[in-house]
Parts: sequence; structure tokens; C-alpha cells
Amino acid sequence: MLRRLQIIPIPGMPEVRPGDDLAGQIMDACQAELLPADGGLQDGDVLVVSQKVVSKAEDRLVKVDPNDPLSHKPLVLQESKRVVRRRGDLIISETTHGYVCANAGIDRSNVDSDVACLLPEDSDRSARRIRDAIKGRLGVTTAIIVADTFGRPWRRGITDIALGCAGIMPILDLRGTEDATGRELHVTEVCVVDELAGAAELVRGKATGVAVALVRGVDPAWFDVDHDFMTGTVVGDVVRNAQEDLFR
Amino acid sequence: MLRRLQIIPIPGMPEVRPGDDLAGQIMDACQAELLPADGGLQDGDVLVVSQKVVSKAEDRLVKVDPNDPLSHKPLVLQESKRVVRRRGDLIISETTHGYVCANAGIDRSNVDSDVACLLPEDSDRSARRIRDAIKGRLGVTTAIIVADTFGRPWRRGITDIALGCAGIMPILDLRGTEDATGRELHVTEVCVVDELAGAAELVRGKATGVAVALVRGVDPAWFDVDHDFMTGTVVGDVVRNAQEDLFR
Repeated sequence: MLRRLQIIPIPGMPEVRPGDDLAGQIMDACQAELLPADGGLQDGDVLVVSQKVVSKAEDRLVKVDPNDPLSHKPLVLQESKRVVRRRGDLIISETTHGYVCANAGIDRSNVDSDVACLLPEDSDRSARRIRDAIKGRLGVTTAIIVADTFGRPWRRGITDIALGCAGIMPILDLRGTEDATGRELHVTEVCVVDELAGAAELVRGKATGVAVALVRGVDPAWFDVDHDFMTGTVVGDVVRNAQEDLFR
Repeated sequence: MLRRLQIIPIPGMPEVRPGDDLAGQIMDACQAELLPADGGLQDGDVLVVSQKVVSKAEDRLVKVDPNDPLSHKPLVLQESKRVVRRRGDLIISETTHGYVCANAGIDRSNVDSDVACLLPEDSDRSARRIRDAIKGRLGVTTAIIVADTFGRPWRRGITDIALGCAGIMPILDLRGTEDATGRELHVTEVCVVDELAGAAELVRGKATGVAVALVRGVDPAWFDVDHDFMTGTVVGDVVRNAQEDLFR
């Protein structure tokens, strides 16, 4: 039987505050939610964590005028390297991290009305810290993805993508692999961390406030067990540099 | 307990030939792969089917020179309304259907070396036909997604997205919904069919030739049971029209 995936929502996170032990809160929530048959967190589990709780724990909250729905706009420019497109109130920019997204990833949902929430300073590092804390406390080797919601050109609707990751190869490189007919594969680099972030969104939802989902059953080859301190990063491996990008 | 998702690869499809009964082949493969505990195909199951087998069954195969890796390029222009970007051999175009993608979705992997495989003429209709055939034979109400692999601007690596769908709302519209703090949600339209296509890719893989995956556990609210003949289409609901697009 081929490998099956299970995607398990992990509710029960407390309201995360600046300085909180986020990894501890995630472990507690997993322990409370997972059933005896699930057997607790296991080697090879992938935890997808919403950017929002990471930013809150890291105090990436900035006071804004609660009565002005555009009071966070100056922050958008501050968090951007370059504006890519602008239409009305909408700004698509390249953030200081290199992501291209709307409003520099800043948003005001699921936070108090007088604050705006910035992206983490370094989401790959945030993921690594959570992973290391879980390894330290439980001895379990997980992978962590910090996920956020981005729009995209040409297609309506948003999907969740990975801002940062740790313990998993962000891009599965199939170059040199053959297809089922023996021809070399043309499409060769699969961004599995974005697919995992999107898959987790399907159980996390936007309105429910479920900040964490567990994906179990991921191919162990996507974890780099021999060099598990550094399997790659989203900012290093997924974010395109300007030279190779046709849409800047 | 919140709803969990299970993603089950369905291997064992035969080599699909023009004119084949694809829906029948999918049902047979599901029957062979699903375990007694899975209980066969069920109402609410989502089947994600690779574009490649749909195109093969619909005879969207065109003869090309097997010795010329670029012999399919004239087809790319023929299948396009407009070239969006061009760099070297790479053409990003808007296809006759409205998708913006590389090489008009035409590729030569997992097909004989002397043919190129075009996208289905109408992937939403293809999905609907498979759904109707399953409903007719098994009496089971499934949703179908026809999935393909697209690149994207700004981020390396490809992910699977939906070319067509039937029986499921392509975009989950959360406008008017409140977040966990009672504020109206800002990000409101989630493209669940793209997230489902990407989730299925995680078990289908590129090299293994697994053309179908089953996603079980999807929120029943995403199916429109009262009007299940028409829940929306990818081309109608997901593909952006040129006026609202900032990147054409």
C-alpha cells in the first residue's frame, strides 16, 4: 500500500501573547488533541503553524488607530523593499524578506482592533526554534512549516503557502528522475512545503482560529535525517531572486 | 473532534488510451485500492485526477517529431490566446481556456516520445462527466478535481492546481464571516480546489504515475447538495478576468 497522508487539525491553542512559549503551547495542544490511537507526536510528523501565532509570540504587533481601517498602510511601505503593483488601497510589494504579496503580509484579523500584525522577522528561524524545542523536550524529530495566506496572479482566491520551514526540504528536486515511461521528467522541482501549507489550511480554516495542523505520513525522504540541522529554507530555496523572475 | 482529512493515493490505473472509459477505470482502481475498512467510495469523497489521464482518454494527443525537443512549440501558440512572457524556449501564455501557465500546459512526459499532450478542451466538463458516471454507476455523490502542475511567479518550484472541478465549490466565500475575535474577516475567498489539488500531489508524486488520489473528510458545506448539478467551475470562478488582474 502506498503512503497515505492524514491531516489533523490541532485546536485548543490559548490566545498567544508576546513572549509566550509557543513551542510548549503547540506541544500541549497536540497532547490534548491527539487520540490514544494517534500515539502522540512522532518522528516524521509535519506541524503547520499559522504565521499569526508566530508573530504574536514574537511580538510583531504594532499599535494602529482602531478607527482607521488604513492606519496600517505606512507599515506596509516600511516592511517593503519595493512596490510591485498598486491599485487603490491594495499594495503588492516585495517584503524585506523577499516575499511578494499583498500589504507586506500585514493584517488585522484575529488580533485586537488597535494592533496590526507584521510577518515574523525570519520565519525559517521561527520554524527552526519550534522544531528544536520539540526535539529538546520530547526527543521527536518533526518538521515545522510557518504558513500564511497569499493571493496569486491570474487565479482568484487565496491559498496558504509556506513563509518558513525547518526539518523538511522545501523543494523536492526530481531532476534526473524518470517518469513512468522512462523519459526524464520535465517538471522537476515540486514545492512540497507550499502544498503542505495549503493542505493544512483545508482543516485549519480562516474563521475557526485553529492555528496548527499536523500532517502525518509524509515521505521520509523529504526529511534530511543525516543533516537535520539544515534541510533548506523558504527564503533561501523558494523565494525567487529578481533575475530569474519574469514578473517584477 | 474536528474533521480530519485523509489523502489516499489510488494507484493501479491502466495505461489510459483515447476513448477509454476513464470514470470506469477510476472506479475500478478505487475498488482495488481501498481497504475493507475504507468502505469503498463514499458520498463526500473528493477524487483528484491528473490532467494527463483525462487528456489521454479524450485523445488530446498530437504527433510531434520525437527527435526534436521543441517540436511541440507551434502547438503552444495554437493553444494560446496571448503570450504573457517569453524567455528563451519558455513561453508563459494565456491559454484558449484562460489559464496563464507555461507552454499552454502542453507536455511530453508520461506520454510516448512522438506525441505531445494538450490540456482537455474543457476540464470542468471532464470533471462533471466523471462525477456523473460515478453517480450513475455507484449512486455515490463525489466531487472531482482535474489537476495539473503549474509554476508561479515569485516562488520557485511547481505545485498542483485545479484545471477543472465538479460537485465542489471552487472558492469558499467567507465574506461576512467573523474571525475568532469577532472582526469581519479580511481574507475571505479561499481557493479550496487548488489546495486540494496540491494536497493530492503530495501522495501522487511526479515519477510514480499515480494518476488519482482520494481526499476524504472534506467539509460537507463545500458540496452543494441542493444544487449538486452546478456548484461552480474553475474556468468560471477561479480564472481571473483580465480587467481585475494586475499581472498581464
